[in-house]
Amino acid sequence: MSKNKVLKRLILGLAVAGAVAGFGTDALANDAPIVLKTQGGFAVGGTTVQHSGTFSEENFLSEDGQAAYGDHAYVFYQIPVNAKRYPLIFQHGGAQSKRTWETTPDGRDGFQNIFLRKGYSVYLLDQPRSGEASLSTKPKAADEAWGSNPMYGDHTLYMLSRVGHYPNGKPEVLKGSQFPSDAESYNQFQRGWNIASGALDNDVNADAIAALLEKTGESVLVTHSMGGTIGWRVPFRTDKVKAIVAFEPGGTPFLFPENEMPEPITAKFAPLSATAQGVAAEDFAKLVKVPMLLIYGDFIADAPSDEVGQDKWRTEYQMAQQFVAAVNRHGGDATIIHLPDRGITGNTHFLMADKNNKELADIMDDWLKAKKLN
Amino acid sequence: MSKNKVLKRLILGLAVAGAVAGFGTDALANDAPIVLKTQGGFAVGGTTVQHSGTFSEENFLSEDGQAAYGDHAYVFYQIPVNAKRYPLIFQHGGAQSKRTWETTPDGRDGFQNIFLRKGYSVYLLDQPRSGEASLSTKPKAADEAWGSNPMYGDHTLYMLSRVGHYPNGKPEVLKGSQFPSDAESYNQFQRGWNIASGALDNDVNADAIAALLEKTGESVLVTHSMGGTIGWRVPFRTDKVKAIVAFEPGGTPFLFPENEMPEPITAKFAPLSATAQGVAAEDFAKLVKVPMLLIYGDFIADAPSDEVGQDKWRTEYQMAQQFVAAVNRHGGDATIIHLPDRGITGNTHFLMADKNNKELADIMDDWLKAKKLN
Repeated sequence: MSKNKVLKRLILGLAVAGAVAGFGTDALANDAPIVLKTQGGFAVGGTTVQHSGTFSEENFLSEDGQAAYGDHAYVFYQIPVNAKRYPLIFQHGGAQSKRTWETTPDGRDGFQNIFLRKGYSVYLLDQPRSGEASLSTKPKAADEAWGSNPMYGDHTLYMLSRVGHYPNGKPEVLKGSQFPSDAESYNQFQRGWNIASGALDNDVNADAIAALLEKTGESVLVTHSMGGTIGWRVPFRTDKVKAIVAFEPGGTPFLFPENEMPEPITAKFAPLSATAQGVAAEDFAKLVKVPMLLIYGDFIADAPSDEVGQDKWRTEYQMAQQFVAAVNRHGGDATIIHLPDRGITGNTHFLMADKNNKELADIMDDWLKAKKLN
Repeated sequence: MSKNKVLKRLILGLAVAGAVAGFGTDALANDAPIVLKTQGGFAVGGTTVQHSGTFSEENFLSEDGQAAYGDHAYVFYQIPVNAKRYPLIFQHGGAQSKRTWETTPDGRDGFQNIFLRKGYSVYLLDQPRSGEASLSTKPKAADEAWGSNPMYGDHTLYMLSRVGHYPNGKPEVLKGSQFPSDAESYNQFQRGWNIASGALDNDVNADAIAALLEKTGESVLVTHSMGGTIGWRVPFRTDKVKAIVAFEPGGTPFLFPENEMPEPITAKFAPLSATAQGVAAEDFAKLVKVPMLLIYGDFIADAPSDEVGQDKWRTEYQMAQQFVAAVNRHGGDATIIHLPDRGITGNTHFLMADKNNKELADIMDDWLKAKKLN
């Protein structure tokens, strides 16, 4: 019997023993049922605007005297049996939706399933003015940089997300990528984007999460990309945020005390530079009370680069390091992880859906345990 | 002990006995966990359009040579353990999303949970160009009657959905309504609508469902309102539709053999009239092979009425009766239920979310059983 065969039998034997003993290997856990106490959805937060005039039933299609509802988030929640104490609230990134957390390009468990299997309650939201929360009291400006249909941008998005490039006119994942390289995964990636239905407003988005926390009670926020700045604005509004885990925050401003603003970090293509925004000292003081974990993936340049995705995330990662330093300087508890520094390579901007997403979920889970939030 | 108290104790006793014996009453079933083998999401179907020119990485934000993806549906599926043979595919109505099936205005189980608890696999979709499937290869026409933000229409939508009216300027559910009368349910109703992100095209929508059936295999379609006509177009494309259950189809055309078109049925407010569309004999022959159940609620006028909602659904219900007659005349198996004729009163246009939605789910389930599709 070859050495490999022996190893395989040993692993199989351990897996079976694990199953019988009631604890699983990763492979077994994947097949275990997800047992929900309940699940459902609701709109949360939001505002209304009132049209002038008086409504009359005879003239029932006129806008006169009618209200427009909008600016709420739509939330789909799942509560496992024997749920852990603190629910996880998931805020997606720009031009995305809760789909971000529900699946992966190749159909494996997304963070929704992974954390349900770990026993967490999950609240997935479509941020105001997008996805299933598309009602808005404010229309999108014509020049809003959030795309309109049809959106001719498949190459741009693939490159900026550090998934791949087009060396011979054909898409190709970066060498060593954790993104699956098959054609259907490419198709799912391209179809995962969403067109916003109204103006992007980080404060409107943070308001909706704060309203959600009034329902859930103390919870952990998990954000991705442009959702980062939304998450950091929530502690200004409520003291119910127990922690924030931010996957590759960027694309929207990092927050600093207004008298401690960092120097700009400029991308080679200037509009992609990392941005900073000053906030009042008392707001920053609320933010630093919240333990924070920031996680960045691979293919982030060290110095200005012609690879636009790798260059863009260089500026964001450098700004994130300054943000973490500012938080800790003010007595906070912020940690930043650059995965390659831990020997974890190949992660794209959509790291929570990458092939090693369970390993990343474990890092997050271990950190929550260390903070006694598990 | 009063008669009522005796009855209560008896019911309680039966419930406990049922729980111990491993079978539940309705009340117990509500509390029973939902046990999923798995769940997840994916985009299905869709097209791409290609921009002219050649892409170059130096000019990575230009549309030149890039593709726009769109016209797919987004599907979230849940598979219970020991699932029944035929999954249910849920197609929402106009200006809605899969939220329609996920919840009710007052937070009870929606059809998603109810049918999962009955053991069905459920596939909920956001139709192309809406919700989390907002990418479209065709923009919305400026005059598209699908709303734009802000949408000043709260009174219109409440009335047209036969939920209520505004007798003293304040919203009030219709007398005897199955719609919950509290303020938060009103708020959830108003926030449940969605703005489409592209042109409405029933054939694009039917294409996406046909693509989904290639993945699921033989399944049952469940449609609501404007989703009705989408459902009837799917059997033209695939033979995998085992049955269609249509909740209050209307607002989009009923289909007839092109040489058997009915007389128009005109609403008092003419744009709300029921419409018919002719299809080729060979297409209608495919449709009539599929068993169909159509269910309509309460507050549907018998004769032209000044109540716009009750008048609008008079025309749709009458057209539906003619559609059912045409299907059966051609050898089909179509049934239409007007709930008040069965003594079930108070149902609005959103009957699958009304207070008695479990009773309506049982009617659907019983019909599926009778057709041996359960």
